[in-house]
Amino acid sequence: MPTSMSDAKTVILRLEIDTQSAQFGRAATAIEQADGDIIAIDVIHTDKSRSVRDLTVKIGPLGSTAKLSEALAAIPGIALLHISDRTFLLHLGGKITIQPKTPIQNRDDLSRVYTPDVARICRAIAEDPAKAHTLTIKRNSVAVVSDGSAVLGLGNIGPYAAMPVMEGKAMLFKQFADVDAFPICLDTQDTEAVIAAVKHLAPAFGGINLEDIAAPRCFEIEQRLRAELDIPVFHDDQHGTAVVIYAGLLNALKLTGRTLKEARIVICGIGAAGSACTRMLLAGGAKNIIGVDRKGILSRDEAYDNENWQWYAQHTNPERRSGGLAEAIAGADVFIGVSAGGILTRDHIASMAPDPIVFAMANPEPEIAPELAEDIVAVFATGRSDYPNQINNVLCFPGIFRGALDSRATVINEEMKLAAAEAIASVITAEELSRLYIIPSVFNAKVVEEVRQSVMAAARASGVARRSLP
Amino acid sequence: MPTSMSDAKTVILRLEIDTQSAQFGRAATAIEQADGDIIAIDVIHTDKSRSVRDLTVKIGPLGSTAKLSEALAAIPGIALLHISDRTFLLHLGGKITIQPKTPIQNRDDLSRVYTPDVARICRAIAEDPAKAHTLTIKRNSVAVVSDGSAVLGLGNIGPYAAMPVMEGKAMLFKQFADVDAFPICLDTQDTEAVIAAVKHLAPAFGGINLEDIAAPRCFEIEQRLRAELDIPVFHDDQHGTAVVIYAGLLNALKLTGRTLKEARIVICGIGAAGSACTRMLLAGGAKNIIGVDRKGILSRDEAYDNENWQWYAQHTNPERRSGGLAEAIAGADVFIGVSAGGILTRDHIASMAPDPIVFAMANPEPEIAPELAEDIVAVFATGRSDYPNQINNVLCFPGIFRGALDSRATVINEEMKLAAAEAIASVITAEELSRLYIIPSVFNAKVVEEVRQSVMAAARASGVARRSLP
Repeated sequence: MPTSMSDAKTVILRLEIDTQSAQFGRAATAIEQADGDIIAIDVIHTDKSRSVRDLTVKIGPLGSTAKLSEALAAIPGIALLHISDRTFLLHLGGKITIQPKTPIQNRDDLSRVYTPDVARICRAIAEDPAKAHTLTIKRNSVAVVSDGSAVLGLGNIGPYAAMPVMEGKAMLFKQFADVDAFPICLDTQDTEAVIAAVKHLAPAFGGINLEDIAAPRCFEIEQRLRAELDIPVFHDDQHGTAVVIYAGLLNALKLTGRTLKEARIVICGIGAAGSACTRMLLAGGAKNIIGVDRKGILSRDEAYDNENWQWYAQHTNPERRSGGLAEAIAGADVFIGVSAGGILTRDHIASMAPDPIVFAMANPEPEIAPELAEDIVAVFATGRSDYPNQINNVLCFPGIFRGALDSRATVINEEMKLAAAEAIASVITAEELSRLYIIPSVFNAKVVEEVRQSVMAAARASGVARRSLP
Repeated sequence: MPTSMSDAKTVILRLEIDTQSAQFGRAATAIEQADGDIIAIDVIHTDKSRSVRDLTVKIGPLGSTAKLSEALAAIPGIALLHISDRTFLLHLGGKITIQPKTPIQNRDDLSRVYTPDVARICRAIAEDPAKAHTLTIKRNSVAVVSDGSAVLGLGNIGPYAAMPVMEGKAMLFKQFADVDAFPICLDTQDTEAVIAAVKHLAPAFGGINLEDIAAPRCFEIEQRLRAELDIPVFHDDQHGTAVVIYAGLLNALKLTGRTLKEARIVICGIGAAGSACTRMLLAGGAKNIIGVDRKGILSRDEAYDNENWQWYAQHTNPERRSGGLAEAIAGADVFIGVSAGGILTRDHIASMAPDPIVFAMANPEPEIAPELAEDIVAVFATGRSDYPNQINNVLCFPGIFRGALDSRATVINEEMKLAAAEAIASVITAEELSRLYIIPSVFNAKVVEEVRQSVMAAARASGVARRSLP
């Protein structure tokens, strides 16, 4: 059994049952005893002597595919032909497909979508390249680009292994915002090569979503592409995360009667997400932010090789604090962790100002488990779906690109990001707002439309929209 | 009216009719008099005083959009609000869309196609990159790549204007062979940059279809990519054309009782298509091929700067003929033109061997118009859909990539191309074969499956298949 299947929670067992000697009930009992719950049975084949059935089985906390195999192997007349994993089956052949918008049923259709009549469309675009935004897929298409260097929590697994994430992202783009996104996983991790490749493939696209590219390379790649392309380039790990944290924080501050300007905020983990989050908070009016990383509090009294840290130290920590996380967090109103699991203690939180706000975003293990802290915090948020207040990028990227494409924006700027964050926060009404509900669910259908409208208005107001929709 | 709309054959006229003063019949008469045929009427809006209607109008040979506008302008109470072109309307927003294969309806779905469960798929591919062929879209995806340098007969119109052709090609891939093809128009025409970009974006794809890249750059790009990638790279303008010409020629030779080995063949126009066609014919056993280009017959007695011509001269023209087209064609059995309209005369054909075979493939105007030659040729084929025997790449690329993907071939080699050509030819039975029917229609549903089966068998036999299907 490959290691990657060992943590499957739902599997499909294909059993061959000798109907003369065996009874299905024995197999069912054995599966239950191995902590498996049979949730579906499909008969695949049956004849006088044998029956082949697919059993969909949910594996409980004490079970495993190995235990199931073992339990079934002990029963005479039962053969386990195959174990498939539902998630693997779902990925067979990939998760997206490319469809013609109209069928080509006859020669007349063919002559319009292809030669000879398509030549008139080509000429129209050659005469006026801006027409590419209306007469090609550029109007609605986004490239989801990764070099596979920082994929989820898995690290540098390369472009092939990164594809399932980018395909998943393309599915979300379509499902949530009707954006046609295509995954591009680049077989290079050289900064210049990545920049060149993205620039060269840009004509087909109305936007570029950079994804899972390691810091500090991701900063230069994004900055250069923003400068050199006339379509939005958005590194979701930086800005998507920042937008949704900002949205959650707006509501958490509102709930606890604070303002962004007054709040003392500690950000732990100054990588791609931590930096982008800080820049947004500064743009939104925050005055007192302290950054902490492995080497402690970032301060202008120190010098850093890391260019990003150097910038950070110059623009934060107005009180010039020094020390580690303990020194940073004492008296703080807000803790935002985008660092590593388990680094925050109950004592740290106890040292914060009254009604502390804690966003523990490390994945999969938060900076502190909610169970250890929820009785002493005012608001607790994580990146996980199994706790309240999930800070999830899915709340941002579909709507922000929908708005950017619909306004044919040249960039996604600070104004548009702030507008997106405010729109996400606004979906929760004053009556609904509570410590367990500061951020909408990713399945809340209002989110995309609110974000889209606000982003379009911000694009117009900031002068980056090339098109006005009513 | 932009020039690109001036040759539209079907337009949609939006008329506002003042119902008090005007009568629709007068508009209809005016349209007919301007050689327009009203084929559909849609009422868009109507109230007491006015009516807005969309008229779909087919424009006859004596009509034009200008004449229609003029005729309608003369009628009091009728206002022409807008003229749209059906082909332009069909292209609005592009011609393809990207769809998730399964909907994401709840958190359980989300956790499987995206985080956290997708991480198990990523790890499985990181452990064994070959799994990308089964667990990602690579299994069924082809990049249709152009640099926009030689698009249709339009020339170097650039990547933006090339997109509609590549989108059309992606539609054909899906419709005819269920291949998920995505258009990539590169914003560079530098050979090395094109090669680098395609290599870098290859991980998502199971094959690369190069399209509309100018010669001689296309030769080096294809050769290098074939050598440096482990998925098929196929320049359709070279090999797709060659395969379909070869298929048609097989049937034409059969019909006239000749063999490829004995036939004397003249190829006119030694660019991408002419060279590829010659290589295939040589691989298939042809012994006597003469190439003619602007400077006359290519011969090993001459030296050429053009590397392609140099190779060509060394491998063809065994009789060391010299001179121009007239000297080349005298006594020839077969003329294949992939050159320019109108260069072939009736006298040229009269000098050929009895029962001459003429493939006049120049587009849109053939080397000689069929009307001028059909009484003195045994078989006549063109690239056009309005004459019998259309040599159309659509007969090749869907099936050949279907077969290459299904056998997970590392390349599309000579054996697979020959197999594809023979399969296309074989769709026409001995009973059906006639001088007006040597090649199947692009809508003949047998073609793709026949090509696929033959290509898979050839991939297996030549040792380039990584997977065997039953």
